[in-house]
Amino acid sequence: MTDTGAADPQTAIDAETAAGARERDPRIEARNAGDVGEGIPFIGAGPGDPGLLTVTGRELVEDADLVVHAGSLVNSDLLEEYCADAETVSSIGKDLEELVPLMRDAYEAGRDVVRLHSGDPAIYGAAVEQMDALEHEGVPTYIVPGVTSSFAAAATLRTQLTLNGVANHVAFTRPQGKTLVPEDDHIAEFVEMGDVTTCVYLGTHAVAETMDRLLDAGRDPDTPVTVVYHASWPDEDVIEGTIGTIGERVEAAGYRASALVVIGDAARKEGYERSYLYGDWANRGAGESGENDTANGEADD
Amino acid sequence: MTDTGAADPQTAIDAETAAGARERDPRIEARNAGDVGEGIPFIGAGPGDPGLLTVTGRELVEDADLVVHAGSLVNSDLLEEYCADAETVSSIGKDLEELVPLMRDAYEAGRDVVRLHSGDPAIYGAAVEQMDALEHEGVPTYIVPGVTSSFAAAATLRTQLTLNGVANHVAFTRPQGKTLVPEDDHIAEFVEMGDVTTCVYLGTHAVAETMDRLLDAGRDPDTPVTVVYHASWPDEDVIEGTIGTIGERVEAAGYRASALVVIGDAARKEGYERSYLYGDWANRGAGESGENDTANGEADD
Repeated sequence: MTDTGAADPQTAIDAETAAGARERDPRIEARNAGDVGEGIPFIGAGPGDPGLLTVTGRELVEDADLVVHAGSLVNSDLLEEYCADAETVSSIGKDLEELVPLMRDAYEAGRDVVRLHSGDPAIYGAAVEQMDALEHEGVPTYIVPGVTSSFAAAATLRTQLTLNGVANHVAFTRPQGKTLVPEDDHIAEFVEMGDVTTCVYLGTHAVAETMDRLLDAGRDPDTPVTVVYHASWPDEDVIEGTIGTIGERVEAAGYRASALVVIGDAARKEGYERSYLYGDWANRGAGESGENDTANGEADD
Repeated sequence: MTDTGAADPQTAIDAETAAGARERDPRIEARNAGDVGEGIPFIGAGPGDPGLLTVTGRELVEDADLVVHAGSLVNSDLLEEYCADAETVSSIGKDLEELVPLMRDAYEAGRDVVRLHSGDPAIYGAAVEQMDALEHEGVPTYIVPGVTSSFAAAATLRTQLTLNGVANHVAFTRPQGKTLVPEDDHIAEFVEMGDVTTCVYLGTHAVAETMDRLLDAGRDPDTPVTVVYHASWPDEDVIEGTIGTIGERVEAAGYRASALVVIGDAARKEGYERSYLYGDWANRGAGESGENDTANGEADD
């Protein structure tokens, strides 16, 4: 426990990790997802549109005195709509040694502090390391989930990421680069499976080289690829192509920020089949069940 | 266009699909994700807790005269909180031939109709076939995305599904069964990659056989598996184990409905490393970027 200055965040992370390895974290039992409580919430801001923040996320942001947000990755319309009167700080360019004392000191001074990540914090966020460092300093934290940009992209494209007869699975992935070694780049493997909708979170500048690697790996150049830029933002745009053509088209469009690249037939909604969910199986008994309206999941209840 | 009785939904789906294959659907250009407009919204209700519905979803549900929902897959607390005065109809047990005229007739009679799917409609929903059938009958439709139960599970577990040094990718998947042939069951492949958090949407009764198949495929029996039951619901529960042990533990718990099975180390938050996002790289220039606070994505803006 450090009361002044910045503790070493790596020490905090290691201590928290070691504690977690010994026994189940009692905080997991203490609250359910969606519960609001003491401490600093790490909130998924959703894809961009202020209306795609959750009800709980909105309430917490509206009540906050200090909002630490992900800079221009969070739509400024959302900050203006929900927290125009709060102090807002961008996390961009700040390391843990700066962010953790900033949030801790504000919290200990009795201010309502929220941390706003884009999308959902569980997908390519860096929420957990901040949470562990804060907890080690005695500041409770918790996650409020959000809508990831892939789901907004599917809404824009009027499709599902799983689609009967087209795609049975979904992968959220990233290409090799500074944060990922080539051996851990699985995009070609996901695409090869043939029935996986592969959602690649990356910068638009990396689209062309990512497609080139897929061609080198032998993937079909005619595989559909749809890029959704700034899904749910006012400047949302959709660029369609294939593994063979999308790189040039994205470069021609001139976007410089991050985008979502959807590889596979589901983005085009082509050739899907009516599911069994609303057909013959709707009145049957036990069977598998998923998130949504499977009659079978229901029958199990 | 059919004005009376039920059109054949498969004809409608085929016609819509053929139209989409010819040229880009103009409706994609006409609205952004998050926009509210004419027609019937297909809303992701989120994982269960009423506060994890989106702000826009809540407004639409509150204003609705008729809410067609996914039965007990949607938390009844949400219906009670947001639409106690509306007519509510469960879709369970109803096929397209019944659901489509029901929604169409109500819409054409001037009522505000919403369709509420659990989680996000893009993940194991069957929204698109209903949308296509309605559009074919002249009823506009659109999707309002939601929070999937995997994200609520991560919030419960106080972890991320991607975690630096532990998991670089996420798969949403289902096991073989009535709706998936064995060749399209990729769970063993996702697990074999080693750095994929594999989120399996299935009924609790299928957990044991799914694990047995992983053992048959040679996966390590000590691979961590965490089952999150009813994430964000009042009766939320977490069962921890491994590929070798989780089947028995889930059976002992006696749950009969669907659950989320998270395979991989990320659920335990063990052994992760501080990311570079808040370290040395925070002040660097171009590089890859993802959904969240990558300093590099930011630098690209």
